[in-house]
Amino acid sequence: MAVLTENTYKPLTVESAINLAINLQLFTNKENLVCKEIGDGNLNLVFHIVDNEKQKGIIIKQALPYAKVVGESWPLTIHRSEIEANALKTHGEFVSHLVPKVYHTDKTLAITVMEDLSHLTIARTGLIDGQNYPLLSSHVGEYLAKTLFYTSDYALHPFKKKDLVKQFSNPELCKITEDLVFTDPFFDVDTNDFEEELKDTVREIWKDASLKFEVAKLKKQFLTETEALLHGDLHTGSIFASITETKVIDPEFAFYGPFGFDVGQFFANLIFQVIVRTGEQRQVILNHLEKTWDIFQTIFTDSWQKDCLEPFAEIESYLPYILGKIFTDSIGFAGCELIRRTIGLSHVKDLDGITDIKVRIAAKKTALKLGRACILYRHKINGMEDYISFIKQNINE
Amino acid sequence: MAVLTENTYKPLTVESAINLAINLQLFTNKENLVCKEIGDGNLNLVFHIVDNEKQKGIIIKQALPYAKVVGESWPLTIHRSEIEANALKTHGEFVSHLVPKVYHTDKTLAITVMEDLSHLTIARTGLIDGQNYPLLSSHVGEYLAKTLFYTSDYALHPFKKKDLVKQFSNPELCKITEDLVFTDPFFDVDTNDFEEELKDTVREIWKDASLKFEVAKLKKQFLTETEALLHGDLHTGSIFASITETKVIDPEFAFYGPFGFDVGQFFANLIFQVIVRTGEQRQVILNHLEKTWDIFQTIFTDSWQKDCLEPFAEIESYLPYILGKIFTDSIGFAGCELIRRTIGLSHVKDLDGITDIKVRIAAKKTALKLGRACILYRHKINGMEDYISFIKQNINE
Repeated sequence: MAVLTENTYKPLTVESAINLAINLQLFTNKENLVCKEIGDGNLNLVFHIVDNEKQKGIIIKQALPYAKVVGESWPLTIHRSEIEANALKTHGEFVSHLVPKVYHTDKTLAITVMEDLSHLTIARTGLIDGQNYPLLSSHVGEYLAKTLFYTSDYALHPFKKKDLVKQFSNPELCKITEDLVFTDPFFDVDTNDFEEELKDTVREIWKDASLKFEVAKLKKQFLTETEALLHGDLHTGSIFASITETKVIDPEFAFYGPFGFDVGQFFANLIFQVIVRTGEQRQVILNHLEKTWDIFQTIFTDSWQKDCLEPFAEIESYLPYILGKIFTDSIGFAGCELIRRTIGLSHVKDLDGITDIKVRIAAKKTALKLGRACILYRHKINGMEDYISFIKQNINE
Repeated sequence: MAVLTENTYKPLTVESAINLAINLQLFTNKENLVCKEIGDGNLNLVFHIVDNEKQKGIIIKQALPYAKVVGESWPLTIHRSEIEANALKTHGEFVSHLVPKVYHTDKTLAITVMEDLSHLTIARTGLIDGQNYPLLSSHVGEYLAKTLFYTSDYALHPFKKKDLVKQFSNPELCKITEDLVFTDPFFDVDTNDFEEELKDTVREIWKDASLKFEVAKLKKQFLTETEALLHGDLHTGSIFASITETKVIDPEFAFYGPFGFDVGQFFANLIFQVIVRTGEQRQVILNHLEKTWDIFQTIFTDSWQKDCLEPFAEIESYLPYILGKIFTDSIGFAGCELIRRTIGLSHVKDLDGITDIKVRIAAKKTALKLGRACILYRHKINGMEDYISFIKQNINE
């Protein structure tokens, strides 16, 4: 679909973004359009175009051919834009109400034109501001159960599944995770970033052979287990929310990986809020954690019972085994996320935003301690109730 | 390389095979060439062309667009020819002395022109005839260690590995294994094939929920674990041997799967000989089993120590963990192979060739019993010595 005359990649401007929207007939009258670039400029350009008269908007997201994190910049395939659009569409088949609608894609320009979600707030920002989003966990639980089950071998013909594995091969973005989540934080390398006050704790991690052994196993799972089409970066910054709505965005890290990775990343990003909140407000988040797993299990089980193609599904112990594996893996992956967001290259505002240095360092030490415990003891945690006690224990001690 | 004028697939004849060989300049003088089609006609045409004067030969293998097994016929991608040639080349980078040389390939015609190995015997045939091939296990142990290690995440850059995973996506051939090895033998379906005398034993298998649960786990590993580029069908019928040489052929089932699958299939096909032999001749095969694992471990360990790219390899417990996992998985996969070759669609001559019905049924019952035990108790077997005792126990009881 040649809506622009260019046949080669070129970053959009506010001007050309508006022209594109008009050419796509998403708007009729150029006069009423206001366009702003609202991306952070590190990975993507994000144009928000609004028709002021009709109160209707769209988002045009364009991948940049590089990534910038904390000053560093390295080349990065714009193919991730196609991966992201395809993941939104594939996941959208199962949870259309939980992902943005895709109106148009262009491989050459590396753009995705999609639903304007500006009436919602990024969940991380909202949670830090004390919002509680009562439906967040049921929605994410449903998102996880349906996207993971329906893209797995349990629901797809093996030809279709293997075709998707190929289509979502995503080496460059996976490598970022392989390095920044599963490797660098556990070794003394330059990409790490942490306060002087954490140095001793971090050194303990680098010397902890039993911890590193368990991380090696989790990394191996990430590298080799093609269980389902993952979002690949499901932290609370990839979720738009309000009191009534939830939309999961930005699946540019999508690839076939272990079920538990998405679940675990979401767990960990809730846990940051558990760490920084207290009293009843902390309990709200613990309830979210419980609800996420509860809804996940319920919907995964329903889907299995209705749509599982695997003849061995008749074996009663098989589904509990799969759910058990997902749970255990999730706790391990959550542990890695807790550690890497505290001492690795890419941090979270939940912790970094704490201005009081003493409080911040204490919170970070708790994140590291809990992360380590999740990785080491994941096989010993029996169910969500047990996990909640485990978290409380590791936070309060 | 347009050596033939055809742009479309067409089965070769003795005539056109000779013309192809001449066009490829593999021979100069057409007069001295003798060509015979020596394939079994079920999956491939195999032309053996010999220059009688120069005593030099080649093999031209051409994939047929269908598969025939026991009278049944179904369409099958000729793309497998490309997979096979690429697997021979990829594995050949690491064990050039253990695979046939590839002289030429043609995607359209689905042919591989390769080294003539007619001075060797198919290992299964030789073993059934009482040959012992003293180097078989060291060669196969080396083949397994090098092909598996050097195509894994431990030896390849992640981009290269993920590229190979895509290149060796092999849905149709994998489905044959998924069905015939991991599913059908455990359910009452038409593809199964066994003597009336085995009916009760087979019904026990179909009703055995704990066995089927373990098979479900092994099947899941086959479907989701992209550990290494496997041969995919490493039975003794895929191995040419003599007293001094071993060549592994026919990797058309190649794909990225669990390390243990190739190892386990080879184990199982040795075990059929353990079952049918007695006394010292049985011991020879048990020694092969031991040697295969011994050499595998030694070379895998050497390769790991020399060439492992994984930073976590520094953790002392990591390599033993990986070797332990490979061993356990291998025993499980061996168990599946023992069962499916006894009651599934595709049998082995080691058992079917036994003319005395009582002896044959006894051997098959032993294969089923041992297969079941391997699957159920694989996690409890500690090392090869233990496995050998375990096999002996299950055979003699």
